Amino acid sequence: MKFSEIGEFGFIDSIKGQCDIPAKGLIKGIGDDCAVLRSQSGRVLLFTADMLVQDIHFVIGKIPFYQLGRKAAAVNLSDIAAMGGRPLVLLTSLAVPVETEVEEIQELYRGMRDICEHHGLTIGGGDTVASPDKLVTNISVIGDARENEVLYRSGTSPGDRVYLTGYVGDSIAGLKILTDEITPPEEMGTYFIKAHNEPVALVETGRSIAASGLASAMIDLSDGLLSDLGHICEESRVGALLFAEKIPLSSELKRLANGVGFNPLDLALSGGEDYQLLFTVPAEHEQGIEELFKEHDLAALYHIGEIVERPGIRMVKADGSIEELQHKGFNHFNRNQRQDYEQGVLDSH
Amino acid sequence: MKFSEIGEFGFIDSIKGQCDIPAKGLIKGIGDDCAVLRSQSGRVLLFTADMLVQDIHFVIGKIPFYQLGRKAAAVNLSDIAAMGGRPLVLLTSLAVPVETEVEEIQELYRGMRDICEHHGLTIGGGDTVASPDKLVTNISVIGDARENEVLYRSGTSPGDRVYLTGYVGDSIAGLKILTDEITPPEEMGTYFIKAHNEPVALVETGRSIAASGLASAMIDLSDGLLSDLGHICEESRVGALLFAEKIPLSSELKRLANGVGFNPLDLALSGGEDYQLLFTVPAEHEQGIEELFKEHDLAALYHIGEIVERPGIRMVKADGSIEELQHKGFNHFNRNQRQDYEQGVLDSH
Repeated sequence: MKFSEIGEFGFIDSIKGQCDIPAKGLIKGIGDDCAVLRSQSGRVLLFTADMLVQDIHFVIGKIPFYQLGRKAAAVNLSDIAAMGGRPLVLLTSLAVPVETEVEEIQELYRGMRDICEHHGLTIGGGDTVASPDKLVTNISVIGDARENEVLYRSGTSPGDRVYLTGYVGDSIAGLKILTDEITPPEEMGTYFIKAHNEPVALVETGRSIAASGLASAMIDLSDGLLSDLGHICEESRVGALLFAEKIPLSSELKRLANGVGFNPLDLALSGGEDYQLLFTVPAEHEQGIEELFKEHDLAALYHIGEIVERPGIRMVKADGSIEELQHKGFNHFNRNQRQDYEQGVLDSH
Repeated sequence: MKFSEIGEFGFIDSIKGQCDIPAKGLIKGIGDDCAVLRSQSGRVLLFTADMLVQDIHFVIGKIPFYQLGRKAAAVNLSDIAAMGGRPLVLLTSLAVPVETEVEEIQELYRGMRDICEHHGLTIGGGDTVASPDKLVTNISVIGDARENEVLYRSGTSPGDRVYLTGYVGDSIAGLKILTDEITPPEEMGTYFIKAHNEPVALVETGRSIAASGLASAMIDLSDGLLSDLGHICEESRVGALLFAEKIPLSSELKRLANGVGFNPLDLALSGGEDYQLLFTVPAEHEQGIEELFKEHDLAALYHIGEIVERPGIRMVKADGSIEELQHKGFNHFNRNQRQDYEQGVLDSH
């Protein structure tokens, strides 16, 4: 069925049922001007939004609508996770090309819904509008957290350890395979494409880190390891030292790099959309954080570097030499930089 | 300057200063993964989102960027107002064509910012991404309200009075002038174009109505009087009777209708984007609500109809006859209906 045949109200009716996830404190979800949620004293609200545009962030045909819905939700939940928060309610705005099949958008909703249900939050409404040509999604999420547990980018200081929750570089490798920039040896494509199309939001891990009181700063890896660590350094007015040998690379990425012929570390440092959590921990809590990850069934834990006074990010290489890394935020607006990004060129000097 | 030259981070830096509006309870605005806001006990949160797409909701050149920013914010605040809430924080997501002038988007932000400052809320962040061709804005707003004061669409019952806060039809007349469907007599265009491009969110009025405890249901007029009254009727499982003579029409609209030759009531009933508040009041509070509007310096107040048991919306005309009005939600996805909309044809029988 075409969107032009069913219209906004018909479409909302068609997805209302599956958005009816019970959530603690929800007074009103879809069906009024606003989603209404009971608030609790002593806690703070977290409120984030993320927009995905067709042919900029995704290509139809390269990602199934179900996965697109999951991803659109997950990248927002990852922002809540990065503050140590608990997601509460999600709103979704969609600009849908008139000729889009309704079933495709329903698939997209199903993906969002599955993620929401998994994390125990509700879809509280949103806005569905027509688009002249491209599909655009904008998801916003409210979460909350104990005020004294929230982890900001600005909280770290020299001497803190830098930790990472899992592999980096797999997502950008998946993107390069999807865009035919890399042709993987047989059977390897699936792993990377899944890493790119189906990122996981580490909500429980983020909350546990925050609740432990052991960390000093946190961010999720959306722009890339260097860029996001750069955000922490900037906001905390510090620098960082990375240990090249300690940066976690999947065996798949190493094999792919071997087969195709590139340095997997380049992808790990500059590639975006891994949605791992990057966080810092004062030296005296090093043991504590490692125990926390062991005791609770959290994500993996890699100690990849240290926070230092000297601004900038440097990397200690296998041979002991130190390389200055200039991070550069990924700029979708700049065609040349996008080119760089897609070629996995690390701007280092 | 081109967006491609400045990039997302450069752009955010360039607008950070003007987003720095102090807001009660704001712990963190722009510059982290989420906006963080202290919550209060005994109150509910309101959370709304609204997307505007170029060439669907606005045409560049027909609305200055400053007004576009104001409008994008105002339509969301109007949703908060329609629940009787107080807006607290706004997030803005923008998909911006690469070749857009930065100054234009800064103007858009200036418009949003002015509206936010006027209503005492802050811009808490958002997302700025590239777009292949069209400009898309998505604004989401958190507000809050006392739990027992929130006004839903579902709260009215037969016997309640239907009230409206101001003129309807001016906005659609402005749209028709902008699209050259109506050529207004000299000097008249400005009034209508302003009504269309610069709607006002009746936040104070909405809060006063809610706080008074006198009203039973409320909605803001975004889709049009018939359509939005239809939402109230549907959610409350009632019908409504409108008094044709009581529907407030500006003298400008009457003059325009006279000059050009159309029935102004058609535009008033079916035209959207007036952003007046439509609310219902039990008969015993009729005097109370009228006193409230007189005592406080609120919007105008028009008693335009009654809630009845029989489903559907009917209109008592000047000659005493009753016309059945079939409301039809405006469907951006349906080209034929859009045609109807733009021709101001009221689908009545």
